[in-house]
Amino acid sequence: MPALTRIDHLMQSVRERIAARTYPPGTRLPSVRAHARSSGVSVSTIVEAYGRLAAEGLIEARPGSGFYVTAPLAPLSLTALEPALDRDIDPLWISRQSLEADDDALMPGCGWLPSDWMYEQGVRRGLRKAARSASQDLTDYGSPLGLEPLRQRLARRLVQSDIEVGPHQIMLTDSGTQAIDLICRFLLEAGDTVLVDDPCYFNFHALLRAHRANVVSVPYTHQGLDLTAFEAALQQHKPRLYISNSGIHNPTGARLSAATAHSVLAMAQRADLYIIEDDIFGDLETRPTTRLAALDGLSRVVQIGSFSKTLSASLRCGYIAAQAPWIESLVDLRTATSFSSNRLASHILNSALGDSGYRKHLEHIRYRLSKAMDVTLTRLEQLGLSPWLRPREGMFLWARLPEGHDALSLARACLPHGVILAPGPVFSQAADAAQFLRFNVAQCSDTRIFTVLKNALDQARPD
Amino acid sequence: MPALTRIDHLMQSVRERIAARTYPPGTRLPSVRAHARSSGVSVSTIVEAYGRLAAEGLIEARPGSGFYVTAPLAPLSLTALEPALDRDIDPLWISRQSLEADDDALMPGCGWLPSDWMYEQGVRRGLRKAARSASQDLTDYGSPLGLEPLRQRLARRLVQSDIEVGPHQIMLTDSGTQAIDLICRFLLEAGDTVLVDDPCYFNFHALLRAHRANVVSVPYTHQGLDLTAFEAALQQHKPRLYISNSGIHNPTGARLSAATAHSVLAMAQRADLYIIEDDIFGDLETRPTTRLAALDGLSRVVQIGSFSKTLSASLRCGYIAAQAPWIESLVDLRTATSFSSNRLASHILNSALGDSGYRKHLEHIRYRLSKAMDVTLTRLEQLGLSPWLRPREGMFLWARLPEGHDALSLARACLPHGVILAPGPVFSQAADAAQFLRFNVAQCSDTRIFTVLKNALDQARPD
Repeated sequence: MPALTRIDHLMQSVRERIAARTYPPGTRLPSVRAHARSSGVSVSTIVEAYGRLAAEGLIEARPGSGFYVTAPLAPLSLTALEPALDRDIDPLWISRQSLEADDDALMPGCGWLPSDWMYEQGVRRGLRKAARSASQDLTDYGSPLGLEPLRQRLARRLVQSDIEVGPHQIMLTDSGTQAIDLICRFLLEAGDTVLVDDPCYFNFHALLRAHRANVVSVPYTHQGLDLTAFEAALQQHKPRLYISNSGIHNPTGARLSAATAHSVLAMAQRADLYIIEDDIFGDLETRPTTRLAALDGLSRVVQIGSFSKTLSASLRCGYIAAQAPWIESLVDLRTATSFSSNRLASHILNSALGDSGYRKHLEHIRYRLSKAMDVTLTRLEQLGLSPWLRPREGMFLWARLPEGHDALSLARACLPHGVILAPGPVFSQAADAAQFLRFNVAQCSDTRIFTVLKNALDQARPD
Repeated sequence: MPALTRIDHLMQSVRERIAARTYPPGTRLPSVRAHARSSGVSVSTIVEAYGRLAAEGLIEARPGSGFYVTAPLAPLSLTALEPALDRDIDPLWISRQSLEADDDALMPGCGWLPSDWMYEQGVRRGLRKAARSASQDLTDYGSPLGLEPLRQRLARRLVQSDIEVGPHQIMLTDSGTQAIDLICRFLLEAGDTVLVDDPCYFNFHALLRAHRANVVSVPYTHQGLDLTAFEAALQQHKPRLYISNSGIHNPTGARLSAATAHSVLAMAQRADLYIIEDDIFGDLETRPTTRLAALDGLSRVVQIGSFSKTLSASLRCGYIAAQAPWIESLVDLRTATSFSSNRLASHILNSALGDSGYRKHLEHIRYRLSKAMDVTLTRLEQLGLSPWLRPREGMFLWARLPEGHDALSLARACLPHGVILAPGPVFSQAADAAQFLRFNVAQCSDTRIFTVLKNALDQARPD
């Protein structure tokens, strides 16, 4: 009965839009006639579909006005579109758990360094310096592009990594995440396709959901994107944007090889694909990786970054490096949506980056990370977990669970014991994602983590 | 020839979408068939329209793939949709001019207080205190809702203005503008209709443009919205949201009367309209105005605010007060799009608000503002300008130019002399908007402003 199938199909598509918040509560659905025209089915089919959804209580008819969504707001989560994925654990699960955790929580799954690893002294000095600075710095709005001395410093840093850029091509933001968000607002339409790595940083999924983008994942290898799958995705999905980390990949700790970088960029050029290169972990590299922004000269690649992972996450300050005409429009967008740059934070950050201590601080972090990486690898292997890759640098370790274990169940089992894990499915929608956990080796010094994990594994052991 | 007219109409609608960035460069236009279906014209008409747009170079055909927008990005400006409005002056003009101005610029048109009017001492004390605080406060991310002691303080302040709210109903943001932006992201679909006051704060236009909302202006009277026009707009446009300042209205300095507040809310309830009450000027009131949020109990009214106008604009910290279920979703949205709250700024702000000096500081500002209001009124009247209203409080004065003068030309004429004016058309699309200027009396102490203005008026005087 094709009519019936069409009705079910229509109902399902409306249900999904409500779940995905494409239709938030109170949204007026397209008129029956308009919907019939656009979906190419008969008016009576739409009437029937709307009628059944109203009977389900998902929408309501308002006489003389049309049909409106009544459902409560769907959570901003993958679960809305992937019912298979456990409802309680979505791309925001780790962020919310980690950001809400009390001080004695153990957070091997969280994405940042312990506070006593960060550049506390630099921030204190910056604060004392700011307390003595001119009144404008303390009370005025920041300039549209952001504090010039900081932009000059960032430009010099980028030039050192072979990215030819001037201060006028850099806009300061309130965070690396806001930087990506602004570029997405600038480039994306609802429904545009965006490529991400599989696995990738979970917040890319959450952010792209907020943009109502169609997200397509491309497998990530030890050298970077799987080029065959990338080419296929370009052909099949005509994506507008690709978002990735070149330096140290989150969550795998892999590095983009020069050859892969070159191929990715060449293919992106042919397909007219834009790229956001999230360089937030760059300062943790032990030796520099090829940057897409360097090869491309910022024509179709935009680089973003911040110092939340190496200096302080409490100072909210990130940046966008892009071609000059884009910066102009991005400044307009930022002014319209958050008004001004963060003047005080920029000052404090600039003085912290300026004192000689930051370089020493980075060397010390890299040293501690490599030690912690070895220790954590050993402890995990003792529990039967195996690394997908032995990272040369960075804080992340992407580890496969022993056969038959499920990362989501483990995450739920460990949470009551104060251990916050990062289960694979929030990074990846691949079939085997639930066999992986991401570990932050800097957050794994407390052996209780491994005791709790061992007990959870033992109790979950399939007989 | 109806076919021809249809083609012109189609071309114009595509041109406008490109200009308004509804179709940014690289956007694939709807397929010829889809466009024909949705617009109810023949395929051949669409083919002809696309062909001509391609001939104009606005779009290009990509064989086998469709038509794509080639135009450079349109500025995020009213001018895109109102060609009548001068191209150089758009809703972002004043912000950009004021934010980019050097220290000796005269800014009677800018929307904030001079830095030496702000609470510099409180910020310095807050910075010194922060420099001694725990390392987590200096280097960790903030919690999803934001610093609890500050949220408790804000809740107490709101309860004092009869707004029943608990700390769990308050989310900290990086600015008042970001607060409005997040609520718009939460509530609005592209194409939704939003009501604003005529005149209103220009950045509402810029922000709603970024959301691709359909903006409808309702005349503002000395007591608040024109209720007849409001009712008509509700009937005709079925808007989803209304954004306004209840306390001290920007740009007019009017106050929302209790009776008007009650009627607006009752009508909003009948029409199922949501309201954002921007309370950013509340602390400048000499006596409290009725708040929509107080009457409504935060069911359909969301109140936002910040201290950028009274304490410091350099500390980026605003807030949203809303019903608890909304806060949950807003936290998800904020985490996805800017990750965490501004922990350090929240600490500094909380200590500045906490010391007894802030209340005295406010009394002093209010006193200075009332003096400056009188002086500025006199000086403007000497130049033949007449106030639309003699504001009882606040920094803004909405003044009508002598007959036959044009605010946009005056703004352009004064700019080379280092005087940044705020011309009416950026606040209003009304026919007589170009006869108005907004003055910030706190920025009008320098008499050179009136000399420059007088010369510009003299030179522009119609013979």
